Amino acid sequence: MEHQQNDHRQAPLRLAIVGYGNLGRGVEKAVGKNPDTALVGIYTRRGPASVKSASGVAVHAVADLLAHRKSIDVLILCGGSKDDLPVQTPEYARHFNVVDSFDTHARIPEHFAKVDAAARASQTTALISAGWDPGLFSVNRVMSDAFLPDGASYTFWGKGLSQGHSDAIRHVPGVAAGVQYTIPVAEAMDKARSGLRPELSTREKHRRECFVVLKPGADADAVRRAIVSMPNYFSDYDTTVHFISAEVLARDHAGMAHGGFVIRSGDTSDKVKHVIEYRLQLDSNPEFTASVLVAGARAVHRLHQSGQYGCKTMLDLSPALLSPKSAQELRANYL
Amino acid sequence: MEHQQNDHRQAPLRLAIVGYGNLGRGVEKAVGKNPDTALVGIYTRRGPASVKSASGVAVHAVADLLAHRKSIDVLILCGGSKDDLPVQTPEYARHFNVVDSFDTHARIPEHFAKVDAAARASQTTALISAGWDPGLFSVNRVMSDAFLPDGASYTFWGKGLSQGHSDAIRHVPGVAAGVQYTIPVAEAMDKARSGLRPELSTREKHRRECFVVLKPGADADAVRRAIVSMPNYFSDYDTTVHFISAEVLARDHAGMAHGGFVIRSGDTSDKVKHVIEYRLQLDSNPEFTASVLVAGARAVHRLHQSGQYGCKTMLDLSPALLSPKSAQELRANYL
Repeated sequence: MEHQQNDHRQAPLRLAIVGYGNLGRGVEKAVGKNPDTALVGIYTRRGPASVKSASGVAVHAVADLLAHRKSIDVLILCGGSKDDLPVQTPEYARHFNVVDSFDTHARIPEHFAKVDAAARASQTTALISAGWDPGLFSVNRVMSDAFLPDGASYTFWGKGLSQGHSDAIRHVPGVAAGVQYTIPVAEAMDKARSGLRPELSTREKHRRECFVVLKPGADADAVRRAIVSMPNYFSDYDTTVHFISAEVLARDHAGMAHGGFVIRSGDTSDKVKHVIEYRLQLDSNPEFTASVLVAGARAVHRLHQSGQYGCKTMLDLSPALLSPKSAQELRANYL
Repeated sequence: MEHQQNDHRQAPLRLAIVGYGNLGRGVEKAVGKNPDTALVGIYTRRGPASVKSASGVAVHAVADLLAHRKSIDVLILCGGSKDDLPVQTPEYARHFNVVDSFDTHARIPEHFAKVDAAARASQTTALISAGWDPGLFSVNRVMSDAFLPDGASYTFWGKGLSQGHSDAIRHVPGVAAGVQYTIPVAEAMDKARSGLRPELSTREKHRRECFVVLKPGADADAVRRAIVSMPNYFSDYDTTVHFISAEVLARDHAGMAHGGFVIRSGDTSDKVKHVIEYRLQLDSNPEFTASVLVAGARAVHRLHQSGQYGCKTMLDLSPALLSPKSAQELRANYL
């Protein structure tokens, strides 16, 4: 293992991107921040001639992937969890080491099983559900649970834009455009940190704030009522709806900031309590996720080189596997 | 690996403690919180007849350890980093899987080399420098560096009692007793969180607060000046000295609370910044450290069972290795 952790001094890790949206662009930037990696190609289902990469790296059709197999160490799959990754990850794992950010929590076991079967059959290594949630938040949920087994865990998200809730708003009659922010409630976070293990309801933990552009002639009050009463998405929350112009929406609500908190409190003996808190504040959800994917690709390559095939998650990765630094350097300067 | 993660359903992990001070007592309590583990013995250099365990588990002389070898899966070494562990960990690693909390950062590479040689020669597995710093803080320093390679890291400690600084106070002429708290400076933490990567001096990051009991007839002002001007320990800090009675010291300053923060900020592209923050608030430093050691022992046993011998640190451990839960359960409920 220690030998492998030095191998970037010889040759960079050769990465390729499949799918060139926000996440793919983020991976391209992350490669620029990681000198032990190199981007060898971007693969798209669009006509490659119509796509120009920010870094100038070559853009190819996905149909060319297999022919380029020998020049790629790890493929980073940047498609969506709904339609792309359930098909792509098992398929590409038959030929490549792969990393994805599959984030439909309820379907992870099913996705894992498919990718694991493909990777084991082909002796490749796959990392699924990398990113920050699932991903770093999962790592912190598992570790804090292991260190404080007698305790309670809380995950708070935000402030950040929820794509699913924004989509739900846009389907309300009378809405031309809109976004939704998930906002953690400060009082609930303080209770979680108190070590008293409160039961916190959905409504107590998060509130929802919507910024909506109405269609001409739409009834603002009807739209507001349709949003705040929407089951699953809004009815269990305190929801605020603001009506704004298309110009203000474009100017003030195009950011992709996100973040959140994982808090666990627990006791090691009678009245002796402890709190572990992990917090992310992200200017760009896709760029940070992409940065985690690139570190994950490094771990995948090392696992593959040491003969560890099959599907992994971030729960299977040690910190040293993710780091570009040698084991000796980590022990001397980071431990 | 998945098979092994279920093996506590058959038989608990058999742990033994060497050294029955605050940390050893913490391990005893932690075993009580981890149903997949069992404490099989406490080993002491004192006359075992003079030591009564809180849980009622048998207390033996350390001389009996080798004879009990077959009934112990992992030995948790709870001695001090200055004199005990540099000798004990390599010695016991010749016969047992071991875990220690060696925390003299500068001497970790040397300690690692000795323990690694002993463990490899005997095909045992050792975990050194487990706990929270070194330990969980190290894990967070390495992971946040891997995810934000273009950034800056800050570690803040406290509020908590520093044993080394308390010892230094007690050596000042005129001091009968005393304790020292390390306190992180809120303004410095806010700067670290700003993402602007400030250079923070030693004085800016922490202040020091001393509670001192004077000897009869001692000159308070001379004692204060001797403390605040002491090189290495206090002269680089803003230090406050309070004079109190022996009764108040015993009543208000016997706690072992501690904690701290690891904060990293970094950019993934121009003006796109992110902050990762990890925080611990611990009512009892030794009890929390002990709880980490027990989770570490679980990981050590699994590594040993899969033939991974030699010395490890927490940088080599995946979250799944530390958790009592099966890989399937972790993927379904924690990812």
